[in-house]
Amino acid sequence: MSLIYLNGDYVPHEQAKISVFDRGFLFADGIYEVLPVYHGQPFMLAEHMQRLHNSLHAVGITPPHSPAEWEVILRHLLSAEQLDNAILYIQVTRGAEFPRNHLPSPNMQPTVMAYLVPFTPPTGEPAPVKVELLEDIRWLRCDIKSVSLLGNILLKLQSTASGAQEPILHRAGRVTEGASCNYFIVKDNELITPPADELILAGLTRQHVLNLARSAHIKVREQAFSTADLFAADECFMTSATREIIPVGQVGNEVIADGHCGPVTQQLIKLFRASRS
Amino acid sequence: MSLIYLNGDYVPHEQAKISVFDRGFLFADGIYEVLPVYHGQPFMLAEHMQRLHNSLHAVGITPPHSPAEWEVILRHLLSAEQLDNAILYIQVTRGAEFPRNHLPSPNMQPTVMAYLVPFTPPTGEPAPVKVELLEDIRWLRCDIKSVSLLGNILLKLQSTASGAQEPILHRAGRVTEGASCNYFIVKDNELITPPADELILAGLTRQHVLNLARSAHIKVREQAFSTADLFAADECFMTSATREIIPVGQVGNEVIADGHCGPVTQQLIKLFRASRS
Repeated sequence: MSLIYLNGDYVPHEQAKISVFDRGFLFADGIYEVLPVYHGQPFMLAEHMQRLHNSLHAVGITPPHSPAEWEVILRHLLSAEQLDNAILYIQVTRGAEFPRNHLPSPNMQPTVMAYLVPFTPPTGEPAPVKVELLEDIRWLRCDIKSVSLLGNILLKLQSTASGAQEPILHRAGRVTEGASCNYFIVKDNELITPPADELILAGLTRQHVLNLARSAHIKVREQAFSTADLFAADECFMTSATREIIPVGQVGNEVIADGHCGPVTQQLIKLFRASRS
Repeated sequence: MSLIYLNGDYVPHEQAKISVFDRGFLFADGIYEVLPVYHGQPFMLAEHMQRLHNSLHAVGITPPHSPAEWEVILRHLLSAEQLDNAILYIQVTRGAEFPRNHLPSPNMQPTVMAYLVPFTPPTGEPAPVKVELLEDIRWLRCDIKSVSLLGNILLKLQSTASGAQEPILHRAGRVTEGASCNYFIVKDNELITPPADELILAGLTRQHVLNLARSAHIKVREQAFSTADLFAADECFMTSATREIIPVGQVGNEVIADGHCGPVTQQLIKLFRASRS
């Protein structure tokens, strides 16, 4: 059983219900956040709280809780679920209103949910995965961590149908991100990842990897790269909160370099795991 | 009180609740349909059923009901609500699943809702409205009538903040549609509207207006037009299921022609109202 924080109450997940007139359900009018907890400690808490605030601000929803209040909810859930490692999921929508109307009333009461799922931080050598190159058909505000995710879902389904784990998306040949991950390539010992503009969700795992690389004096460039650069890369990997760092061995039918986890990727995985404990 | 059809039951709207793990709520993983009922008769029923089927097919959700079953639900709601004119709202999502995962399980049980709202078909001379020209930031599958609508909502909010009723969207100067309407212009007695490609939701009111115009021997062109064409138009109007045909008098600070409802728009409103009774 999982406990769900829902609008001030803690309820078993089977009982966590919302109105069909919630604007999250009718219009995808809401945002979310995903935060790993390692050994009882929220990871990059301040940065997650800032991004949550930014998402709410971008869609014009008043923050329902202060960072301190969110932390109380997180601590309550951690204690109730007796979890050491976990992923905190937070979702805030503009709230419920009947009848349905595109234009929301001002000052609606947001719907707030939060819960934990057990998390086993990755260990061992991660196997390189296959990803599928697909056109990025999503909207132009991917920097907002919104629940308006049907594009991501359809692209994810399309990639897995072809035996890949994730899509790697591009707009007119410019690589953006995955359905739920960021991408990096390594070329001539330089680490390159698309810039944190409106075409990608600036993952905090992405940010942490950039910080770790800079600390380790790895040359880093946040700059758009092309699908041609991707195929010519020495290494490629994806990052996400739950998967951390996963080497990419293959894009469609093309093997990247020799298809193995390269030395820079290995070094970053080592640094990442050392930093999380 | 409104009655909501929800997964086989009819419940008062206050009691119509779904799991927070519904993929409609978490991922906007669902579609919808809006169908006007005039004097107890569903308007363009076959066409709405076809579009509903197309939307479900596009996102890979198995149709939960046949057209005949949908009609039974509609008739039940009409009778229970004792409504003569109404708007039927239908929403189907991929269903609920715990824990949350981008990738859905195969063969999920869809969540199905339907309900009526009272509808007063427009009468009298509609006053020309102001719309606001905004960049179309939405995804590239606007032909799917999905609930992944946050882009539409943000654009609608932005347009109303500037005193307009709707946005009129463009991609690099090419006009697409509104947040919940289609647009037409009239130039030299020719009716022009953007083609039904992946950049717009092909409204059935739009389709009906095209049919009416062709029957009345008005020259019709389904072709992309530019923002320059818009500002140079002799007439401009929007169409939607609930608003039918509304003349556009102003785009931002620019008045279209003399700002009044033009003769072709007037003729089409007359034809539309005659056709609905």
